[in-house]
Amino acid sequence: MTERLKTIILAGGRGTRLWPLSRELLPKQFIRILDNRSLFQKTVERARIFSSPEDIFIVTNREYKFRILDDLSEIGDIPKENILLEPDAKNTLPAIYWAVKVIGDNCKVAVLPSDHIMDSGDGYIESFKKAMKLADSYLITFGIKPTKPHTGYGYIKPGRNLGQGYEVAEFKEKPDLETAMQYVEKGYFWNSGMFMFRTDIFLDEVQKLAPEVAEAFEKDIEEAYRTVPEISIDYGIMEKTNRSAVVPLDTYWNDLGSFDAIYDALDKDENGNAIRKEDGGDLLAMDSSNNLFIVSRLTSAIGVEDLLVIDTDDALLIAKKGESQKVKEIYSMLKGRGDERIKVHRTAYRPWGSYTVLETGEGFKIKRITVLPSKRLSLQRHYHRSEHWVVVSGIARVVVDGKEILLRQGESTFIKAGAVHRLENPGKIPLEVIEVQIGQYLGEDDIERFEDDFGR
Amino acid sequence: MTERLKTIILAGGRGTRLWPLSRELLPKQFIRILDNRSLFQKTVERARIFSSPEDIFIVTNREYKFRILDDLSEIGDIPKENILLEPDAKNTLPAIYWAVKVIGDNCKVAVLPSDHIMDSGDGYIESFKKAMKLADSYLITFGIKPTKPHTGYGYIKPGRNLGQGYEVAEFKEKPDLETAMQYVEKGYFWNSGMFMFRTDIFLDEVQKLAPEVAEAFEKDIEEAYRTVPEISIDYGIMEKTNRSAVVPLDTYWNDLGSFDAIYDALDKDENGNAIRKEDGGDLLAMDSSNNLFIVSRLTSAIGVEDLLVIDTDDALLIAKKGESQKVKEIYSMLKGRGDERIKVHRTAYRPWGSYTVLETGEGFKIKRITVLPSKRLSLQRHYHRSEHWVVVSGIARVVVDGKEILLRQGESTFIKAGAVHRLENPGKIPLEVIEVQIGQYLGEDDIERFEDDFGR
Repeated sequence: MTERLKTIILAGGRGTRLWPLSRELLPKQFIRILDNRSLFQKTVERARIFSSPEDIFIVTNREYKFRILDDLSEIGDIPKENILLEPDAKNTLPAIYWAVKVIGDNCKVAVLPSDHIMDSGDGYIESFKKAMKLADSYLITFGIKPTKPHTGYGYIKPGRNLGQGYEVAEFKEKPDLETAMQYVEKGYFWNSGMFMFRTDIFLDEVQKLAPEVAEAFEKDIEEAYRTVPEISIDYGIMEKTNRSAVVPLDTYWNDLGSFDAIYDALDKDENGNAIRKEDGGDLLAMDSSNNLFIVSRLTSAIGVEDLLVIDTDDALLIAKKGESQKVKEIYSMLKGRGDERIKVHRTAYRPWGSYTVLETGEGFKIKRITVLPSKRLSLQRHYHRSEHWVVVSGIARVVVDGKEILLRQGESTFIKAGAVHRLENPGKIPLEVIEVQIGQYLGEDDIERFEDDFGR
Repeated sequence: MTERLKTIILAGGRGTRLWPLSRELLPKQFIRILDNRSLFQKTVERARIFSSPEDIFIVTNREYKFRILDDLSEIGDIPKENILLEPDAKNTLPAIYWAVKVIGDNCKVAVLPSDHIMDSGDGYIESFKKAMKLADSYLITFGIKPTKPHTGYGYIKPGRNLGQGYEVAEFKEKPDLETAMQYVEKGYFWNSGMFMFRTDIFLDEVQKLAPEVAEAFEKDIEEAYRTVPEISIDYGIMEKTNRSAVVPLDTYWNDLGSFDAIYDALDKDENGNAIRKEDGGDLLAMDSSNNLFIVSRLTSAIGVEDLLVIDTDDALLIAKKGESQKVKEIYSMLKGRGDERIKVHRTAYRPWGSYTVLETGEGFKIKRITVLPSKRLSLQRHYHRSEHWVVVSGIARVVVDGKEILLRQGESTFIKAGAVHRLENPGKIPLEVIEVQIGQYLGEDDIERFEDDFGR
């Protein structure tokens, strides 16, 4: 049997380069862009090749707890205590260090980002086996053989040949195009962001090269994240240690770091169009070729080429192919003006189900609320809004100021401002409720919770 | 004082080339694309130059009655009996013939399409005065001096010079590009679709050249439209008569017959972008030039050029500039599959106000209904749906099975299937109601009307 590993999955990234497909509260690793599995779920499945469920550790932001639990509920049985919830985002070194401390000494560990895709067939397995051999002496980084002179990745210059890989001669920052062409010609690798090491070697190196990180984690987690510097494992350890080696990862790999990369990753039709239809999406394309179409409405295209068209419920992006790295500038502009559309989709996921904002007007807001079978929202109160609920599907148990009623399809109730209330789906099928909110202030933060099944 | 005219405005067109901006129930002539006036309203204003309100006659389809009345209510006082409502669409000759019969003998009449734009300054007025002089002997068509070898228009070859204009030597069908270039070089005119004639000459020519049209109109209008052939004035009369003359229309003219033409007509910013933001529309454009953006959501553009982007509530069109004539093929595809989105926008206009479909799901539909002050819907009944109404703005008078109640902001009521009901706005500001319909069948045709202020 193959030697086993523990695996740390990094799932706290916020990725801004796939807006409007991704949002702050639904970042890239949770998107289901290629098929019905999220990139995070695919990463867990990859981790399973070398790690049992109890040996897989997930580090993510507290905000993503329920997304992680939802995703895991579809694919398996990672123990809940293996999910490490960061109170703040401090880049990769603190995240990995925390997980290594939890895992303990003298283990071999792989570190996987959760927002890349790759083929996990023979080439992947062979590369991991080679890395395991070298990991007794080295901190391993996996290197990708470049397919083109990409300017969006860091490069690794290989040094002495170790048989299973190479010592790292030098890490190179993202180059310009000309430099990138030289790197490719000289056989440099792309830095994949995937690592493998023994925990004792890693802890030694952090103690030596980034002692402020080790020191921060001597306190409790809240305090640790308040004081630890924001620092990546590349900058903090890999570029400074003299114990790093690179193992070529001999497989298809794509970091999906831009809509250009997503175009590359998707299947194309006979006209070179990559088409992804979301719920409600449809496409009529005439004389159009080599485009990416991600559509959520009826979209027609006539005579267009080399476009990236990302059409979501509440935002549309049209970019020329090759220019998609500028999406982060659009994102910054929107952030600068406080636009909510960088944070959430029209549909927001909650541990009990989801809601979609159908319309917002002067003094009112309309939502469609879906409550999963046998789930319930918190017992809550709003000061500034009253709510009308109409059940359009399923059955609802509603508690208002201590009184309980059942509502069937077509029935409705009214919750006046100040009333303590709770909505529950006691049934076996999803409950759908149309909520009409009325009030002078309709922010999501006008909520006082008295009791909650999800510890909020 | 200038000689006066009667004017026939043709407002029954269904225009398919501006989909998804226009729809069957909101065709081009009713769109407010350039400013806050519809093209129809602008045409009425142009007609006023030579015609008093009581001398302006409007021929339109029955389906557009309330749109016409709404548009007219904003701009003036055309007598209601001058609005001729066609029971069917039979092209321009029957429409003009009916209006001429209503106007009577021995009048000078101008015929204006209602979906073009032009400058109605001195050049326009001079051309009309010249036409009036020739109209004692000729059927006049107005010719536009071509600005480019357009392949989308018919051309007119001028013959003998009559001083005020030219006899028509020949009408030419839409040419290919090479032929169009020859036509432009030879001084041919574009056929504008605008005409002027004496009614007695016109009636004589119809009797002679299209007697089946004259004959059909000997019966009542319903019967006439059942039997009259579908035929244009160009094909039926102008191309056959030997009494036609062309008067050059010396003014800016644009038929807005495609999104390319709309780009030409709109003002451009410093990057050559023509931008029109509809309600809720916003645009962030980087490194993008010479595009048409008509947007109704948050739209971001990066590095795109020469695109026509038409973003509406429920449909998106992206076309390369110069290819917009192919929109009618998209339209045909959608018609072929029975897609409702060629007929209506998400928002539909009614004589009492409007409604917007916010969401349609299995067994339910949600609308926002706006009732104008002191208007009311018909007294009605639905067999297959119940309705919940929540007032979000204004005040409602609701009658259900003979009982009357008043609802204020935040109040609601329930109309069960089979109940006879009516919704009215007794107030001074618009009434906004959220309607949640529940039922197995939610078609607009499940309605039985008992009483209606609008004669429906």
